[in-house]
Amino acid sequence: MAANSVTATPRIDLYSDTVTRPTPGMRKAIAEAEVGNEQAREDPTVNRLCEMVAELLGKEAAIFLPSGTMCNEIAYRVWVDHGEEIVLEENSHALHYETGGPAALSGAMCRTIRGKRGMFTGTELEAVIRVPHGWHGQRQRLVSIENTANLGGGAIWPLEQIEDVAAVARKHGLKLHLDGARLLNAVVASGIPASAYAASADSAWIDLSKGLGCPVGGVLAGSRDFIEQAWRFKHQFGGAMRQAGIIAAAGVYALENHVERMAEDHANARLLAEGLAGIKGIGINPNEIDTNMVYFTVGGTGLTEQEFARRLLADHGVRIGPQGKDLMRAVTHLDVSRADIEEAIRACAAVVKG
Amino acid sequence: MAANSVTATPRIDLYSDTVTRPTPGMRKAIAEAEVGNEQAREDPTVNRLCEMVAELLGKEAAIFLPSGTMCNEIAYRVWVDHGEEIVLEENSHALHYETGGPAALSGAMCRTIRGKRGMFTGTELEAVIRVPHGWHGQRQRLVSIENTANLGGGAIWPLEQIEDVAAVARKHGLKLHLDGARLLNAVVASGIPASAYAASADSAWIDLSKGLGCPVGGVLAGSRDFIEQAWRFKHQFGGAMRQAGIIAAAGVYALENHVERMAEDHANARLLAEGLAGIKGIGINPNEIDTNMVYFTVGGTGLTEQEFARRLLADHGVRIGPQGKDLMRAVTHLDVSRADIEEAIRACAAVVKG
Amino acid sequence: MAANSVTATPRIDLYSDTVTRPTPGMRKAIAEAEVGNEQAREDPTVNRLCEMVAELLGKEAAIFLPSGTMCNEIAYRVWVDHGEEIVLEENSHALHYETGGPAALSGAMCRTIRGKRGMFTGTELEAVIRVPHGWHGQRQRLVSIENTANLGGGAIWPLEQIEDVAAVARKHGLKLHLDGARLLNAVVASGIPASAYAASADSAWIDLSKGLGCPVGGVLAGSRDFIEQAWRFKHQFGGAMRQAGIIAAAGVYALENHVERMAEDHANARLLAEGLAGIKGIGINPNEIDTNMVYFTVGGTGLTEQEFARRLLADHGVRIGPQGKDLMRAVTHLDVSRADIEEAIRACAAVVKG
Amino acid sequence: MAANSVTATPRIDLYSDTVTRPTPGMRKAIAEAEVGNEQAREDPTVNRLCEMVAELLGKEAAIFLPSGTMCNEIAYRVWVDHGEEIVLEENSHALHYETGGPAALSGAMCRTIRGKRGMFTGTELEAVIRVPHGWHGQRQRLVSIENTANLGGGAIWPLEQIEDVAAVARKHGLKLHLDGARLLNAVVASGIPASAYAASADSAWIDLSKGLGCPVGGVLAGSRDFIEQAWRFKHQFGGAMRQAGIIAAAGVYALENHVERMAEDHANARLLAEGLAGIKGIGINPNEIDTNMVYFTVGGTGLTEQEFARRLLADHGVRIGPQGKDLMRAVTHLDVSRADIEEAIRACAAVVKG
Repeated sequence: MAANSVTATPRIDLYSDTVTRPTPGMRKAIAEAEVGNEQAREDPTVNRLCEMVAELLGKEAAIFLPSGTMCNEIAYRVWVDHGEEIVLEENSHALHYETGGPAALSGAMCRTIRGKRGMFTGTELEAVIRVPHGWHGQRQRLVSIENTANLGGGAIWPLEQIEDVAAVARKHGLKLHLDGARLLNAVVASGIPASAYAASADSAWIDLSKGLGCPVGGVLAGSRDFIEQAWRFKHQFGGAMRQAGIIAAAGVYALENHVERMAEDHANARLLAEGLAGIKGIGINPNEIDTNMVYFTVGGTGLTEQEFARRLLADHGVRIGPQGKDLMRAVTHLDVSRADIEEAIRACAAVVKG
Repeated sequence: MAANSVTATPRIDLYSDTVTRPTPGMRKAIAEAEVGNEQAREDPTVNRLCEMVAELLGKEAAIFLPSGTMCNEIAYRVWVDHGEEIVLEENSHALHYETGGPAALSGAMCRTIRGKRGMFTGTELEAVIRVPHGWHGQRQRLVSIENTANLGGGAIWPLEQIEDVAAVARKHGLKLHLDGARLLNAVVASGIPASAYAASADSAWIDLSKGLGCPVGGVLAGSRDFIEQAWRFKHQFGGAMRQAGIIAAAGVYALENHVERMAEDHANARLLAEGLAGIKGIGINPNEIDTNMVYFTVGGTGLTEQEFARRLLADHGVRIGPQGKDLMRAVTHLDVSRADIEEAIRACAAVVKG
Repeated sequence: MAANSVTATPRIDLYSDTVTRPTPGMRKAIAEAEVGNEQAREDPTVNRLCEMVAELLGKEAAIFLPSGTMCNEIAYRVWVDHGEEIVLEENSHALHYETGGPAALSGAMCRTIRGKRGMFTGTELEAVIRVPHGWHGQRQRLVSIENTANLGGGAIWPLEQIEDVAAVARKHGLKLHLDGARLLNAVVASGIPASAYAASADSAWIDLSKGLGCPVGGVLAGSRDFIEQAWRFKHQFGGAMRQAGIIAAAGVYALENHVERMAEDHANARLLAEGLAGIKGIGINPNEIDTNMVYFTVGGTGLTEQEFARRLLADHGVRIGPQGKDLMRAVTHLDVSRADIEEAIRACAAVVKG
Repeated sequence: MAANSVTATPRIDLYSDTVTRPTPGMRKAIAEAEVGNEQAREDPTVNRLCEMVAELLGKEAAIFLPSGTMCNEIAYRVWVDHGEEIVLEENSHALHYETGGPAALSGAMCRTIRGKRGMFTGTELEAVIRVPHGWHGQRQRLVSIENTANLGGGAIWPLEQIEDVAAVARKHGLKLHLDGARLLNAVVASGIPASAYAASADSAWIDLSKGLGCPVGGVLAGSRDFIEQAWRFKHQFGGAMRQAGIIAAAGVYALENHVERMAEDHANARLLAEGLAGIKGIGINPNEIDTNMVYFTVGGTGLTEQEFARRLLADHGVRIGPQGKDLMRAVTHLDVSRADIEEAIRACAAVVKG
């Protein structure tokens, strides 16, 4: 079928932490999952996963969804009426990689803050707060932050900075949403509990198919009332499934087995960054590697990022994603070992040497 | 977590064919699935499933989605611009059980035909075709049919009736969409190939989690161009997953192992209908049982449908869904045996006797 | 400019009551209107008009809008969240002549009742009330009625029938909206005050540019809170104007001068109907002429409605609109005299004779 | 009616150029307007106005709408599919004063450029052009510019800068929309024809109720095909009126009588700016006054902008709008004379002195 084309799998795949394949232990958990009708809330494994995430994030309830994108989009739909505004950092995932969902599904206007490394301060938020301006003025409703900030280089929001932003949001009657696609990376790297990061957020979610290494899904948490409303849109958006315990089982397994090990991904990212820093023409600051993301520039090598990526894959079997404008992004995850990283560094050096 | 409540599992569950649990063979296929990044179209099992369904339905391409609802909603989004109209039979699934998705996600107006058993004729379609009426008139774009028709009692559309409807649609420049949630039931019962049923439709889909017995998903097929557009909305609606081969593997397995066996479900449905017809006070016409759906009334028993359902479950462990207004619906599927049906008939008789 | 084409003006124009031209008295009121910035609610003439209509309809407040369509669409937007359902008679204006606004602007699903002459009963409404069905069920929010019912032949809702429908709506937590485009025709014909018709409606509006003979606008009324919300959508939909007192002045003038005279339009419609009833081949029941609408069939004359309309205009300068399928509609209004009606009857007779 | 509150009219009103009242000559034109049914495109005055604006802007066709907001919102609806992106300068009117219409009505994502004085360059546009990024990437469709730029201080886009931006847009397959609410101010001030400014735009409009001094409306122009599509949304959004020649007549009159005189408004704005520059504590650069907008800060006076505005109105009958954060905006127009400006300067000086 021509619409789906298969690319040869790279030997070392640093394209994203979404490329992980389920481990044998996870496959076993999947195969043995106790299941029920998830739509009727009768799937015990889905229910267990939701309880675990609700507790992890310190919220009353949670809902299982087929993707992280749906977690963001349903939260926006619950909080925002068509025509109202969400405030986000200008490099937020929802602005660039969710196919226009905020406007298409929720009719949401998006106002952006030019922050640093994908993060902003309460003062910066205060600067874009709108004075109510009659009925034709733009009405604000929600602040949405991303921790870690993907396009910010996997940066971790300082806890007090979230609280600062949350205080400004609350002061003006705005809700706070936490896109926690990679929140557990922040938790493992900082030692701060997920519930602390989520405490001042009205809604928050984690992705199962990134650092946790599951095949499918995300879990969105909030108050009981928020989750009840989210159920309506889970159905409407087509995210209500059946014996979803099959995939939720992977989530349960990952929360029990794959959280602490993300520290290895962070060590590998740091190792990669240091290795790249030693290659002439590659631009990178290893001190900005907070978690498992390694952004670097290749302009100094005389190669475009497209050419760099192409050679790296074709000649060395290493995949690192070109991001446009000299930039590349490598992401570490559970299918990448320390030895893989060392080999990837050698491969990058070889590509630069030509 | 309070938002998800678990109900005791019934011994014999005729609530829906969506309640099936994966068989051991299916679980094995799931556990061993070869996977990749589905979003990048790199999951070989998802790709294989899509090829199988595209071929089955005689279309160029197909796309895997987390639910049948998303199959309908994405097809509507592709075919209809906001404000345009879809024509459907008034008992169509999309009008009653998709949370308003056609209007919410596609801005679609829905015009209904009062057909028979969920089906209508080309003449009935012709009667609601609009004369173009300046720019303020309602613009029609799509006809959507459902085969088998769930609320029509699992009725099978005669092939020539579909072709008749399709001819009227084409004549007026409308597209035809086939909601084939239970199309394979029609195929098995009639002996007519799925590709024949889908031949005159511009888009068509099958559900994996009904008669086929899979835990999650549906597959939507159409022209290559249609499927490319569908990909955009798969992402936008949050239906793009990761290593979705885990669940697609169940679909591949079911297409290879669970299609022909639906004949048993149909025989069981007929058996149940005949048994119910012999119980005083129950209203049913066994000759209208085309596939695996058994609708019947309980008004003559002196019980409401709610009370009937409650007693059947509480006293006999048999679950049959009340549908409102004296009506009940039993659905046969792969987790229900001939012996279960016989027991269910006895249970119904006992409930009626009081 | 090719996009706007001018048709020769008919001598007697029964196409619609929307074709009236402002009278000299109305033009004087327009020219002398005291005005201000309507968006800032500083236009005294607009304010006065809104007060008059609020009082007329017995509501707390009202808002001036550029069209009747916008009155309906804003009311729907206020009452209905995207994906929720409105119940309407199947021949309602909003379903056929508002370009899909309910779904496009409000994401509203529309459920239809097959009533009589555009009207339905509380019992018929009760029959389509939905049992809440989990989160994937269709959620109902609003009942919308039209008085007089245009496609129902200008039929007047009996007051007790509105109250009956309203009682059912209230019982199930639904709001009631009254499309009163031609409510004042009902008032004049029945002697029942507008406020009585609107008493059980949560929102109601009248059109200025139909029987009242104004050039532009409608006025939507409801509770103070409803109107405040309507203001937001007046701005959003582009209906906030500036010195709109210029056109509102016509409305004030018409409410003071053009209401009672609609009795003439009704007498003229009856006269026309009786005249047409005497022409062989024309189908009409004069006893169903409640107000200023005269629908009749021409099938028995051997002419299509298109041909009938064409000859009537070309040979006699009389315009009556073809409605498709043998049907024609004539509408009386303030630019049509009794003598015009007599001439129109003679013209119809001549067309039939050929 | 409490929802509409009337404020005492200021003697000298510099709040906006939208506050003008029709002149005697304009009222006469209104009163004598030849009219027809605008919805059927049968209103000769509306047709004439549309021809005039189409010619003025060098486009094939034009459409009359009740507000400038609807001109923007309909153009966006025609050009953009739900979920696609519009690029605008971050201070654009549509982002702040149209109640979220772009997202609410068109599902449009809005990406912003931080330009200078409301304007940006082709290079700045190039920097936000998206590399197509699979199906989950944000899809761009339209660039929207505003000339003059209201929040940019009434700044005039240099013609070559528009052409530069247009060339970048075209190169990437994006359409260009020109919000010309005050385009004629730019024309009068620069001597460059409106058609030259609009030449590289795919759609463009002018407002009638700003510098032109009309009570109601805007006119949107583009290709014949674009205008045909716009008609559909004019009906859908509720902007189709009836005998709209009544208000269009003001537009025809204004285009014949009120264009050149805007030079006086510009001279008055410059005079005001120079006068204010001489008042201690007021911040303003008279060299940045391109047209009829005068933005200035009052931070240095020890008064907040709210207090400054309040005293100016209460003690001197002069209204200038506070814009938040120390900023105020005065706008000159045809109801403000040179003597009024001189008095306003004296009043501001008096307020500062206390």
